[in-house]
Amino acid sequence: MPLTLTPLHGIPLIRQDDDLADILVAGLNASSIALEDGDILVVTSKIVSKAEGRMVDLATVTPSERAQELARQADKDPRVVELLLQESAEILRVRVGTIIVEHRLGFVCANAGIDHSNVSPTPDSPPQMYPFGEGLGEGLVLLLPLDPDASARAIREKIESKTGKRIGVMIIDSHGRAWRIGTVGVCIGLSGIPALVDERGWKDLFGYELKITVVGAADELAAAASLVMGQAAEGTPAAHVRGFPYPLREGSMKELLRPKDQDMFR
Amino acid sequence: MPLTLTPLHGIPLIRQDDDLADILVAGLNASSIALEDGDILVVTSKIVSKAEGRMVDLATVTPSERAQELARQADKDPRVVELLLQESAEILRVRVGTIIVEHRLGFVCANAGIDHSNVSPTPDSPPQMYPFGEGLGEGLVLLLPLDPDASARAIREKIESKTGKRIGVMIIDSHGRAWRIGTVGVCIGLSGIPALVDERGWKDLFGYELKITVVGAADELAAAASLVMGQAAEGTPAAHVRGFPYPLREGSMKELLRPKDQDMFR
Repeated sequence: MPLTLTPLHGIPLIRQDDDLADILVAGLNASSIALEDGDILVVTSKIVSKAEGRMVDLATVTPSERAQELARQADKDPRVVELLLQESAEILRVRVGTIIVEHRLGFVCANAGIDHSNVSPTPDSPPQMYPFGEGLGEGLVLLLPLDPDASARAIREKIESKTGKRIGVMIIDSHGRAWRIGTVGVCIGLSGIPALVDERGWKDLFGYELKITVVGAADELAAAASLVMGQAAEGTPAAHVRGFPYPLREGSMKELLRPKDQDMFR
Repeated sequence: MPLTLTPLHGIPLIRQDDDLADILVAGLNASSIALEDGDILVVTSKIVSKAEGRMVDLATVTPSERAQELARQADKDPRVVELLLQESAEILRVRVGTIIVEHRLGFVCANAGIDHSNVSPTPDSPPQMYPFGEGLGEGLVLLLPLDPDASARAIREKIESKTGKRIGVMIIDSHGRAWRIGTVGVCIGLSGIPALVDERGWKDLFGYELKITVVGAADELAAAASLVMGQAAEGTPAAHVRGFPYPLREGSMKELLRPKDQDMFR
């Protein structure tokens, strides 16, 4: 069976308290897609954060001394760095323009996943806007969802109750990689989908047991969805997936987190 | 336009000097897929290596003193470690069962991408076999292709001349990640496809310039293809892709390699 990923049409600009389940169902209708059992919906962390009101007005943020010192090292806005510290469990690396952290959600990422691309560098320059037209307004930044697995579960349960179909929902973000150039979509929250598929004990064509292979299936799907969702004017913050090749089950983004005692590169 | 990935049927066990272009065209026919301009074919590094004769009989390998010492530290076969040293530019980490290297091809990966899963632990135990039924025989290991970009280009050019269609070809492997559990497909060679898509200067919906975003499009596609190609009995070593959302151009796997002076985690 082929794997088919379709960017959804008709997703409006998302505002706080918008109901993403309703909006996704409307987007499926606008895209002429009839949901089937086993389908998956993928959304960006940005629209989840916006719906959940995770915008912060930088005018309300008072940077600590530690934030001011890190901001000097990284040449970043101290108020953004203050939020980054609040969103992080550990600071791993500091370079000009980039602070690599262990996010409070457990994954390693740059700048704690805080989106501050719409903060104007000077009062006269136009604000940098979000992909998907999600401009927040002057001086606002966007934090990642508080609990993306829970956000995905809530969206899944509401869509399942509206449609009667058994589906999966995934929330993705774009991450850089330690040794490779270019961002790729990664899973930061999911419901109704396995994050990992453990192929230990599967037999190959000759009937021999394969060596241990644990596939990061959710991250592979996140990368695939990111490809069709794009980043700019052509982009859309949601995609429909049909043909995910592994059985659906409840899962958690936490399956994907490498325990610290297995981390060779911290 | 949706992105559609279809695992190819009818790919036989690959032997040295097999013509992968012919085999892929036969696989497309067996899968009832008529190639179109802009389509992409993705293949595993394993079948490319096998066709190119990159098997090594461990009985012919004499481990150096350094290989013997590393093998003791990592609890690995010293002959496999000797090949790993020959295939690597730098050793980054050594742990029991895992040696992380910079491969001579430039990327960071575990165990230099050497597949020795079919080496029997004892003379009496059955050999571990490859996914896709690619058993090599007792005491043989498989190295990555010598020049995967060149391999991809040769396959692309032959298929283009046979079919008259303008396509892309990508060679993928499965890599672990520093901080996340589970392997994901990554691009180790390509032709006719951009490895990176640079969205600097693109306008968003409001006409503002986006901040710098460089998308690892080839790795996103590699992950997507890996998902449909699978790992075990259900797997196939080739997939057809339609709907890649970025313009095709000639590319190189080298675009994906982070320069050492930007590497925070070596």
